[in-house]
Amino acid sequence: METNNEKQNRNWRVTLHEVIYGTHTPAGRLFDVLLLILILYSVIIVLLESVKAYNDAYHNFFNISEWIVTILFTIEYILRVICVKKPQKYIFSFYGIIDLLSTMPKYLSFFFWGSQYFAALRALRLLRVFRILKLVRFLGESDNLIKAISASKAKIFVFVFSVLVISVILGTVMYLVEGAAHGFNSIPHSIYWTIVTLTTVGYGDISPETPLGQFIATIIMIIGYGIIAVPTGIVSAEYTAANRKNTHHDNGRACASCGAEIHRNDAEYCRKCGHKLPDA
Amino acid sequence: METNNEKQNRNWRVTLHEVIYGTHTPAGRLFDVLLLILILYSVIIVLLESVKAYNDAYHNFFNISEWIVTILFTIEYILRVICVKKPQKYIFSFYGIIDLLSTMPKYLSFFFWGSQYFAALRALRLLRVFRILKLVRFLGESDNLIKAISASKAKIFVFVFSVLVISVILGTVMYLVEGAAHGFNSIPHSIYWTIVTLTTVGYGDISPETPLGQFIATIIMIIGYGIIAVPTGIVSAEYTAANRKNTHHDNGRACASCGAEIHRNDAEYCRKCGHKLPDA
Amino acid sequence: METNNEKQNRNWRVTLHEVIYGTHTPAGRLFDVLLLILILYSVIIVLLESVKAYNDAYHNFFNISEWIVTILFTIEYILRVICVKKPQKYIFSFYGIIDLLSTMPKYLSFFFWGSQYFAALRALRLLRVFRILKLVRFLGESDNLIKAISASKAKIFVFVFSVLVISVILGTVMYLVEGAAHGFNSIPHSIYWTIVTLTTVGYGDISPETPLGQFIATIIMIIGYGIIAVPTGIVSAEYTAANRKNTHHDNGRACASCGAEIHRNDAEYCRKCGHKLPDA
Amino acid sequence: METNNEKQNRNWRVTLHEVIYGTHTPAGRLFDVLLLILILYSVIIVLLESVKAYNDAYHNFFNISEWIVTILFTIEYILRVICVKKPQKYIFSFYGIIDLLSTMPKYLSFFFWGSQYFAALRALRLLRVFRILKLVRFLGESDNLIKAISASKAKIFVFVFSVLVISVILGTVMYLVEGAAHGFNSIPHSIYWTIVTLTTVGYGDISPETPLGQFIATIIMIIGYGIIAVPTGIVSAEYTAANRKNTHHDNGRACASCGAEIHRNDAEYCRKCGHKLPDA
Repeated sequence: METNNEKQNRNWRVTLHEVIYGTHTPAGRLFDVLLLILILYSVIIVLLESVKAYNDAYHNFFNISEWIVTILFTIEYILRVICVKKPQKYIFSFYGIIDLLSTMPKYLSFFFWGSQYFAALRALRLLRVFRILKLVRFLGESDNLIKAISASKAKIFVFVFSVLVISVILGTVMYLVEGAAHGFNSIPHSIYWTIVTLTTVGYGDISPETPLGQFIATIIMIIGYGIIAVPTGIVSAEYTAANRKNTHHDNGRACASCGAEIHRNDAEYCRKCGHKLPDA
Repeated sequence: METNNEKQNRNWRVTLHEVIYGTHTPAGRLFDVLLLILILYSVIIVLLESVKAYNDAYHNFFNISEWIVTILFTIEYILRVICVKKPQKYIFSFYGIIDLLSTMPKYLSFFFWGSQYFAALRALRLLRVFRILKLVRFLGESDNLIKAISASKAKIFVFVFSVLVISVILGTVMYLVEGAAHGFNSIPHSIYWTIVTLTTVGYGDISPETPLGQFIATIIMIIGYGIIAVPTGIVSAEYTAANRKNTHHDNGRACASCGAEIHRNDAEYCRKCGHKLPDA
Repeated sequence: METNNEKQNRNWRVTLHEVIYGTHTPAGRLFDVLLLILILYSVIIVLLESVKAYNDAYHNFFNISEWIVTILFTIEYILRVICVKKPQKYIFSFYGIIDLLSTMPKYLSFFFWGSQYFAALRALRLLRVFRILKLVRFLGESDNLIKAISASKAKIFVFVFSVLVISVILGTVMYLVEGAAHGFNSIPHSIYWTIVTLTTVGYGDISPETPLGQFIATIIMIIGYGIIAVPTGIVSAEYTAANRKNTHHDNGRACASCGAEIHRNDAEYCRKCGHKLPDA
Repeated sequence: METNNEKQNRNWRVTLHEVIYGTHTPAGRLFDVLLLILILYSVIIVLLESVKAYNDAYHNFFNISEWIVTILFTIEYILRVICVKKPQKYIFSFYGIIDLLSTMPKYLSFFFWGSQYFAALRALRLLRVFRILKLVRFLGESDNLIKAISASKAKIFVFVFSVLVISVILGTVMYLVEGAAHGFNSIPHSIYWTIVTLTTVGYGDISPETPLGQFIATIIMIIGYGIIAVPTGIVSAEYTAANRKNTHHDNGRACASCGAEIHRNDAEYCRKCGHKLPDA
C-alpha cells in the first residue's frame, strides 16, 4: 500500500502535468498563454539584438532578458521532464528537442560565438499556438491538407528532382552562352540563376545580356511559369479527393433494407427505398 | 392620428431613402452613378495632388476641388444619417465608417499634416460600384467564392503562421551565412529578404553573394515555389466543393412532405423523412 | 436564266473562296501555309528593323521586304473582300479588322512617324495557325477552357477591381511611410510599386528602405502570394465543372426501358436494367 | 544443337543483362547504385571545374577524374550494347543517346573547345534514380500526372502561343512608349522585358520610367498574374479528371460475360453486353 507521501507526490505530478501539458483546465490554459508570451518575447529579443543600433543602445537589457528567459525555459524544461510518465519519450519527441535547443543557446554562447542565434529556433515553439487556441478544429481541418500533401509526396519528389536536373542542364547552357563577362561566373552560379528564373523570383543580380541569352531566358521563364501549374494541380486535386472522401461519401453507411450506398452525411432515410438509415 | 405635416415628412424621408440607398428607381440609379463619378474624381485628385509637378502647377485647382468634394460628401453623409430609420446602425456599419472617414481628411488637414492622404480611403467607396452595376448576379456569383475563402480561413491562418515561423528561422540562418557585409544587416532585415524570396517577389535589393548563401536561397525559392500550391489548392478545392453543393445536389427538388431541400441528383426518397420525392 | 459568263464568274468566286477561306482542299491548305509563312516573315522583319544595328546594315532590304509584304497583303485583302458573299460581315469581323490594320502601316508611314510599328499587329494574324493545323480538336478542347474563363468573367472582374482598390490604399500608405526620398515620389508611383509587389513581379527599381516600409511590404507580399490562389481557384473549379458536364454526363442519353440517366460515354447497355441504350 | 561454348556465352550475356539493366537482383541493384554515385560524382566534377578558383587549384585532379569517369562510362556503354538483344533499339532510345553523349565530351574536347561542358548532359542520367529506388509506385503515381499533362498538351500549346502573340504586341507598344532612352532598345528586347514581366519574374534590369509606361506595365502584370491561373486550372482539372476515372469508376469489377472493365460505381449491369455485374 502506498503511503500518503507517495500519493501526494503522484497527485502533485498529475496536477503539474495537467497545468503544463493540458489546456482543458484554467491553470493549464493560463500556463500555455504565459509561455507563448514568453516565447514571443524571447524571439523578438533575439531579432532586435541583431540590429546593431538597438544592441549598442540596449545591450544590457537584452543580455538580462536573455538570461531570465533562459532560466525560465530551463525550469520549464526540467518540470516537463519530471512530470511526464515516460521522460525519454518527451525528450526525443519533436517538441522535446526544440524545447531543449531553445534553452541552450545562452549557455553555449560562453563557448561558441554565434550559438546565441540558435535562439531563433524558439520560433518553432510558437507553433504550439495552434494547441492553445484550442484549434482542434484547425488541426482537424488541416488534416485533409496534410493527407493531400503526404499523398502528393512521391509526385512532388519526382517533380523537384526533375526540375533540378533541368536546372543543371539549362544552367550549363547559359554559362556557355553568357560567360563570366556577364556575371555567369561558373556553372553552379549559372544554376543558381536558372533556379532564380524558373521559380519566377528574378532578383536581377545577374541577368542575361546577349540576345541569345535573353532568348533562352525567355524560354526558361515560360517553362517556369508553366510548370508551377504541376505542384498546384497535384495538391489541389489530391486535396479535392481527400475532401470528397470525407464530406461526401458519408461514413460508409449502407441502407439495411436495399443496400444502397453513398448517402449525404445528414441523410436520415435511404434515398433509394426510403428506409431509415443507421445513425451516422 | 398623424398630421399632414408628419405624413409629408415621412414621405419625404422615404423618397430620400429610395434615392440614396436604393437602385431600383431611375432617381436612385442616377444618384448612385453621380456619386461614383464624384468618388472617382476625388480619388484621382488625391493621386495627382501627390505628384509634385502637378501640385506645383495646379495647386489652387486641386484645393478648390477638394473643398467642393468635401462639402458634397458632408451633405451626402448628413442626408444618409437623416433618412435612414436606425442612424446608429448605418453610422457603425462598414460603409458608414468609410463614408465618415472620406469626408474628414480636408477638415483634419487644418490640424495634422498628412491627414489629407486619408482621402485615399475614398477608394473603398468605389466598391459600391458592384451594387450600382446591379451586380446581384456578380455578388451571387461571388457567393461561392466567399464561402470557399471563409471555409479556408482556418487553414490559411495555419499556413501563413507556419510560413512566418519558417521565415524567422531561415532569415536567421541567412543572417549568419551572409552577414552585414552582403546587405543582411540584421535578422529582421534577413527575414524581410526571406519573405521577398519565399513569395517569389525577388526585388534584388539584397541578394546572397556567398556560394552557401546562394545554395540556401535556392532551397528557399524551391520551397516558396512549391508551397504556393497549398493556398491555391485549398481555395480551389473548397470552391469546387461549394460549387458542387450548389450545382450537384438535385435540381432544386424539395420534399413535399417535410420540405427538406438539397437531395442527391439520383435520390428517389427524401433523406429526412423517407417520403417519395418528385421525379427529377 | 443566268448566262455562262455569270456561271463561270460564280464558279470562280466559289473556287477562290475555297482556296482563301477553306482548309479542306490541298490548294486551300497550301494558301494558308504560305500566308502563315508570309505573316511570320513580316513580323520578324518588323522586329529586326527595330534593332538599330540591323537597320543600319540592311535598311534597304527591310524596306523592300516591307513593300512586298504590304502589296501581297493588300491583294489578299481585296481578294478576301471580293470572294466572300457578305463583304461587310468579313470587313467588320475580328480578323477583317486585323487584316486591314496589317496592310496599312506601310502606307500610313508616309504620313505619320511610328505608324510602321502597327505592323506588329500582324502577330495577331498568326493566331490563324490554329485553323491551319486543322486544330478542330484544339479548338474543341479549348472550348471548355473558354467556357470556364467566360463563366469566371464576373468573378474575375470583382477580383481585379478589389485588388485595384487595395492597391490604391496600400500605395498611399507606402507613400506616407517611405516618401520621395526612397523613390516613392508620388501616390501613383507608389501604386505602381504596390502592384509590382502584389503580383510578385518585384523589379526592385524601387524598394522600401525603412523598417516600417519593409514590414508593410512583407504584408503586401503575403497578401499577393495568398490571393493569387483566388483566380486560379476560380478558373480551375469552373474548368473542372465544364469538363465534368461534357465528358461525364454523356450526351444526355436515358435508358428507354427504365429511364436511368448518366451513363458513361462508351456505354452500350443501361447500367441499371441492362437494356440496350440508344446509339451515342 | 548449340555447343557448350555458345550456351555459356548466352548465359554470360543474360547475367550481364540482369546486372546492368535489371534491378531485381542484388548485383543489379548494386550496379545501379554504384553507377548513380559515379554519375553524381562526374556531374559535380563538371560543375566545380567551371569555378575558376577550384580549377586553378585542382586542375590535375579534375582532369584525371574526368578521364576515369569517361573510361568507365565507355566500358559501360559497350557492355550495354553487347548484352542487349537488339542493340540498335537501345542505341536510338532516349537513354541510349544520353549515355553516348555522356561518354563523348572528354574525347571531343581534343577537337572542340567547350565540348567538355556537354558533360552536363550526364545530369539527365540521374533520372535513372527513379528506377533504382524501385519507384514503381512513384512512376505509377506519376502516371495520372503524365496523363493529365499530355491531355493538356494541345490546350497548353494554344495558351503559350497566345501568350507569345500578346507579348509581341505589348512589347511593341512598350518600345514605342519608353524607347531606347529607358533601356527598351529594340522590339525584341522589349518583348524580352514583356515576358519577364508577364511571367512575374521581374529582373529589374530594364524597368519602365515614364508614367504611361508604368501604367501599361501595371496592366501587363495584372494580365500575367491573372493568366497564370489558366495552365494551373487546366492541369489541375485534367489531373482531377484522370484521378476520378481511376478511383471512381468501380472498385475493379470486370464483367464476367464479356470482360469489359471500368464501370460506374453504381452500375448493376455491364455497359457493354448488358450482363449482370457482380455486386460492388
